Amino acid sequence: MSADGEPSLTASVVGGSGFTGGELLRLLSGHPEFEVVQATSRSYTNKTVGHQHPNLRGMDLRFSDPEDLESVDVLFAATPHGVSMERIDRFREAAGTVVDLSADFRLDTEGQYDEWYDGHDRPELLDKAEYALPELNRDNLEGAEIVASGGCNATATILGLLPLFEADILGGDAEQSSAGDQNSSSSGNDEQVVVDVKVGSSEGGAGGGEASSHPERSGVVRPYAPTGHRHEAEIEQFLGIDVSFTVHAVDMIRGASATCHVFPDGPVSKGDLWGAYRGQYEDEPFVDLVAGGGGVYRYPEPKAVAGTNKAEVGFELDPGNKRLVVFSAIDNMMKGSAGQAVHAANVALGLEETAGLEFAGLHPVGAP
Amino acid sequence: MSADGEPSLTASVVGGSGFTGGELLRLLSGHPEFEVVQATSRSYTNKTVGHQHPNLRGMDLRFSDPEDLESVDVLFAATPHGVSMERIDRFREAAGTVVDLSADFRLDTEGQYDEWYDGHDRPELLDKAEYALPELNRDNLEGAEIVASGGCNATATILGLLPLFEADILGGDAEQSSAGDQNSSSSGNDEQVVVDVKVGSSEGGAGGGEASSHPERSGVVRPYAPTGHRHEAEIEQFLGIDVSFTVHAVDMIRGASATCHVFPDGPVSKGDLWGAYRGQYEDEPFVDLVAGGGGVYRYPEPKAVAGTNKAEVGFELDPGNKRLVVFSAIDNMMKGSAGQAVHAANVALGLEETAGLEFAGLHPVGAP
Amino acid sequence: MSADGEPSLTASVVGGSGFTGGELLRLLSGHPEFEVVQATSRSYTNKTVGHQHPNLRGMDLRFSDPEDLESVDVLFAATPHGVSMERIDRFREAAGTVVDLSADFRLDTEGQYDEWYDGHDRPELLDKAEYALPELNRDNLEGAEIVASGGCNATATILGLLPLFEADILGGDAEQSSAGDQNSSSSGNDEQVVVDVKVGSSEGGAGGGEASSHPERSGVVRPYAPTGHRHEAEIEQFLGIDVSFTVHAVDMIRGASATCHVFPDGPVSKGDLWGAYRGQYEDEPFVDLVAGGGGVYRYPEPKAVAGTNKAEVGFELDPGNKRLVVFSAIDNMMKGSAGQAVHAANVALGLEETAGLEFAGLHPVGAP
Amino acid sequence: MSADGEPSLTASVVGGSGFTGGELLRLLSGHPEFEVVQATSRSYTNKTVGHQHPNLRGMDLRFSDPEDLESVDVLFAATPHGVSMERIDRFREAAGTVVDLSADFRLDTEGQYDEWYDGHDRPELLDKAEYALPELNRDNLEGAEIVASGGCNATATILGLLPLFEADILGGDAEQSSAGDQNSSSSGNDEQVVVDVKVGSSEGGAGGGEASSHPERSGVVRPYAPTGHRHEAEIEQFLGIDVSFTVHAVDMIRGASATCHVFPDGPVSKGDLWGAYRGQYEDEPFVDLVAGGGGVYRYPEPKAVAGTNKAEVGFELDPGNKRLVVFSAIDNMMKGSAGQAVHAANVALGLEETAGLEFAGLHPVGAP
Repeated sequence: MSADGEPSLTASVVGGSGFTGGELLRLLSGHPEFEVVQATSRSYTNKTVGHQHPNLRGMDLRFSDPEDLESVDVLFAATPHGVSMERIDRFREAAGTVVDLSADFRLDTEGQYDEWYDGHDRPELLDKAEYALPELNRDNLEGAEIVASGGCNATATILGLLPLFEADILGGDAEQSSAGDQNSSSSGNDEQVVVDVKVGSSEGGAGGGEASSHPERSGVVRPYAPTGHRHEAEIEQFLGIDVSFTVHAVDMIRGASATCHVFPDGPVSKGDLWGAYRGQYEDEPFVDLVAGGGGVYRYPEPKAVAGTNKAEVGFELDPGNKRLVVFSAIDNMMKGSAGQAVHAANVALGLEETAGLEFAGLHPVGAP
Repeated sequence: MSADGEPSLTASVVGGSGFTGGELLRLLSGHPEFEVVQATSRSYTNKTVGHQHPNLRGMDLRFSDPEDLESVDVLFAATPHGVSMERIDRFREAAGTVVDLSADFRLDTEGQYDEWYDGHDRPELLDKAEYALPELNRDNLEGAEIVASGGCNATATILGLLPLFEADILGGDAEQSSAGDQNSSSSGNDEQVVVDVKVGSSEGGAGGGEASSHPERSGVVRPYAPTGHRHEAEIEQFLGIDVSFTVHAVDMIRGASATCHVFPDGPVSKGDLWGAYRGQYEDEPFVDLVAGGGGVYRYPEPKAVAGTNKAEVGFELDPGNKRLVVFSAIDNMMKGSAGQAVHAANVALGLEETAGLEFAGLHPVGAP
Repeated sequence: MSADGEPSLTASVVGGSGFTGGELLRLLSGHPEFEVVQATSRSYTNKTVGHQHPNLRGMDLRFSDPEDLESVDVLFAATPHGVSMERIDRFREAAGTVVDLSADFRLDTEGQYDEWYDGHDRPELLDKAEYALPELNRDNLEGAEIVASGGCNATATILGLLPLFEADILGGDAEQSSAGDQNSSSSGNDEQVVVDVKVGSSEGGAGGGEASSHPERSGVVRPYAPTGHRHEAEIEQFLGIDVSFTVHAVDMIRGASATCHVFPDGPVSKGDLWGAYRGQYEDEPFVDLVAGGGGVYRYPEPKAVAGTNKAEVGFELDPGNKRLVVFSAIDNMMKGSAGQAVHAANVALGLEETAGLEFAGLHPVGAP
Repeated sequence: MSADGEPSLTASVVGGSGFTGGELLRLLSGHPEFEVVQATSRSYTNKTVGHQHPNLRGMDLRFSDPEDLESVDVLFAATPHGVSMERIDRFREAAGTVVDLSADFRLDTEGQYDEWYDGHDRPELLDKAEYALPELNRDNLEGAEIVASGGCNATATILGLLPLFEADILGGDAEQSSAGDQNSSSSGNDEQVVVDVKVGSSEGGAGGGEASSHPERSGVVRPYAPTGHRHEAEIEQFLGIDVSFTVHAVDMIRGASATCHVFPDGPVSKGDLWGAYRGQYEDEPFVDLVAGGGGVYRYPEPKAVAGTNKAEVGFELDPGNKRLVVFSAIDNMMKGSAGQAVHAANVALGLEETAGLEFAGLHPVGAP
């Protein structure tokens, strides 16, 4: 904040009418260091942001045409996959720091995009981009010019499993904090990790369609990505392990919950686990360990973190099956997207890490 | 805030383990001027507040015995009806300002308590208490020693109807801003007002029971107070009109939505209504007019204000039936309870009115 | 049933891929007297009915082109408003009895269609059509050639209020059981009736759109027809009274709940009410009186009748406000549409009234 | 059915006021061969069954004292675990066939009860009891005197995995159809099977408590049995394999969905899977294969089977991870409890298997 308490940096949101665009606008408008000077929307040009986002009716801003970008300190792109790689030069002209919420700059190599997506238009820029998750990549974020906010399901999974790799409970070849380790996806170990994810309907975005209409989507436990989910690519890249990944839609709006069934090679004690997770996360402002205390909320739950940038991580041992079960819960639109983006921008620009992200969540709260 | 940016006032919450107690702790812990020095709970003495409220795990505070009250600047009582009237002397010894969230000090006269409740232990204190709703009673709140936070359903209704009385569209005998008007409940007019309210399950509190168990309470449209709801007494007291009041439970956790079907004596135009509502609320920080714009959210909705201290108010004319329909939506735990209480405390103590109440809400959000 | 226990009549469903079309197929396929020989769908021609309706996967039937109608005993039309009036000659060629689920044949006069809809193509047929609600119009249904299934919100309201007119507690000019009384919509009385309706998302059909997407539609209490709902026309036509009608969307899929706030001219006792409602409904197989007993379910609730052809009706007196409150709950897709249609077809064809409609509902059940 | 179309057998329900007791009463009252002559409830003696189960208001029956059992052909016990083993002699005096819905007679040996439960009072009766799941144990059910309805989560899992064992895709030592194979729980193979289950709130029964209150239970993805769930014992017993089992509560009322992550020793093709599942289930009236067709419902979903006795089973191959994913969805109160019990009773008594169980389910339907 400047000496007079006014925001010191300007920001814009490209793709401001969608769910994550609105979430960025909510966070940035309450951020002490950012002034939002532009939000674009092709479909809603000239409408107020409150027209799309009822929680932002108090914000005096109208959507503008995405072709006319203003110069800002930070540009956040909340556009569909493929848009950012096409418009990245224009984004970088407009802003010294570009934070992209799509998948366009998450992976390291063109080969990965060929395998998991439909290739990449600007592969030469991939090594300029930094993955946004500070718990994984804080050191590389400072001063980054392109920041790629992680996939929500990948974020939940990586945060759940990361301490096991750091503590050598799993033997993968984790990339975090070692930039340039590009070939991590070829893992030699054969430890089995099954990740069973449950997500809310906001992951599908504001568009809608028959499957996401209220009558068809309410009350579901619906396998929507039984195998082959693209977020596997991010997990492999950063943890160096192939995970068996399945995603289910359940009846909530915000939230991603990853249950990781892990079979380590050797014996693991509860003390080992507490050591690993405390060591990894005790200084992290946005990761809480929730593992088997009293009361109603004894393990991570998405509804406990809804609206916040928090991840809850917890675990339980199943000695009879030589298994450990790791639970990880986030708000997919926050820690899994817009909140992670703002957190990363804070780090990239040398601001207070928690600035604009202090909301503690609500209790009780339903299916937020 | 004191010159060093630290909180300048101390606060305590009696009855901190319930839903509204938790909401008070959430608001006060994020309030720039209050330091929470005590939260009491008979059932959870010595447990952390996070044990009951997962969103407050980061708060370093344990519940203490309600018999041992610390001296504070403001004491908030989130106890069941009847407790505050019994313990009011002890509360006032502990704090110069007592804000009570129960019904114990909302009504003006012992006779009203005899009619609507089970009488009153300390009727001589009733004229010392001020109703907490600043939109109705701001002038009398400054310096008040006992503040009575309004009932959630009454709050939604009063905010919806108040402009009609102020603008003489309805001829009731509104008390607001004229303290001491004790005989307002005898209304001479016979304009019909039907108030049909829909509320969430948090109104029932944390207790539970068969009717509020998830299997029985999910998906309901359940008439739970067909007639004779006690909040009628508050509405009569402040608006000077008997309302026909019916309350339904619906499937949400937070929220109260009042639809007021109003039949004025004379003709009313849309311009009259906009004039009345704008005149009443344009300077109010926590009341938004939402009346028939574009987009998905064209009228007041509880989910648009969940977690916030906002009330949304809107209306529509039905000339064929000589009716006007007024919609009013609040979060029953916020504007309808804890948020109103903090707002009133801000006014009572001369603080910034919006301090600690800036959260804008979430979009999208489910049944919060 | 024929002597060999086989269905004796053939039936078809035009518009079988939508929600009410599917409900008709469910009911008819379990009906002892009907064999479903055709279901049409323009969009899903040649797909199995199970493709659209997972509960009908066991049914060996594919959608056919709506242009090629087979000759049947009864044709059910579950098409959007406007289609039946355009195709009625073709429907009548195909079947001796046409049961239409749209609004196209509900009203008596062309003038009503000019006022409430966009006029009518075939007004000369309106006096051939009979309103499907047997509780209102049983005598006229026998042998009817065109049957018009009532609107869901109108059905709930009419069933709630009808006994008050029959028992002269309200003085409207109810049409039921007196065919030909076409001018009933001009009511001389000025008793006020407010009808506040809460409905589920299946009322919007299978289409979808932003407002009915799961993230935007979940957890709502949303005024979607504050005034001027077209179902008012049916209510006026049959009860002879103008009602003040407001409809809210709430978080359920099936269900319509009407709360009628009634202000009769004279005094009414609880005994009067029991007499009126028992007299009207004690022999009705599909109307249950639920008025203030013990347990969790003391008044009508949509979730208690979900999937069934039942209406629950109940009431409560509010003497202080000279009001009586009537509650009426139905499944909008059943008693409010497809169930009513099959019930009427049973009557029209001289079958057992309850045939195919015996499902008792589920307990517990969520937001069905 | 007797020649006159009347029920030919008498039945009673002990523990009729709970959720599964009510479901039994619903099924039996619509069953062509059973007349319900008694329903007991200690808490609700002399109340009508409709007092607890609003869907059964039309049933002319009052709860009677569980100490006074009438003689019937079949007694269904829907009592908490531990009651049946204590009262089994009395039950068997009252009825030639006892169908128990608790865990008291599901396991084969006293040792299993010592390991997984709190021992067993009447171990000598365990070999008289037959597991109720006809798809697993049809041959042994005919004429059985004690029938033990399976656990809901175990049922979903067993139905999902059984074809893999029968087709030797997994090498466990499945017991089904070979009575007396008591030592199957010691499995020699080391194929990994992870079962991640999502269940509705009716599994917790009608009791309630803070964790199952609507505000705390709505919108959850809550790990409630991370490890050590007792249903593992049944799965081991019948499939001969240790499964890694984790159960989550999600926001629905009825339903259990098991996602089985299976890592077979050898390669498996999609054709192998179709062969295995078709071979196992093509003649089963209550198992549907749902594996990747078109439309919205492409895999098993609990909401598609709510209220029915159906299990949906499907699968997908994940060759990259040498994994196959099996999905299995049931209504926990039906196929997972009361429906299975009635199905087994039909088999035990030589009735039509599907009698009383024909309900096809609803579409659309929310969180039933």
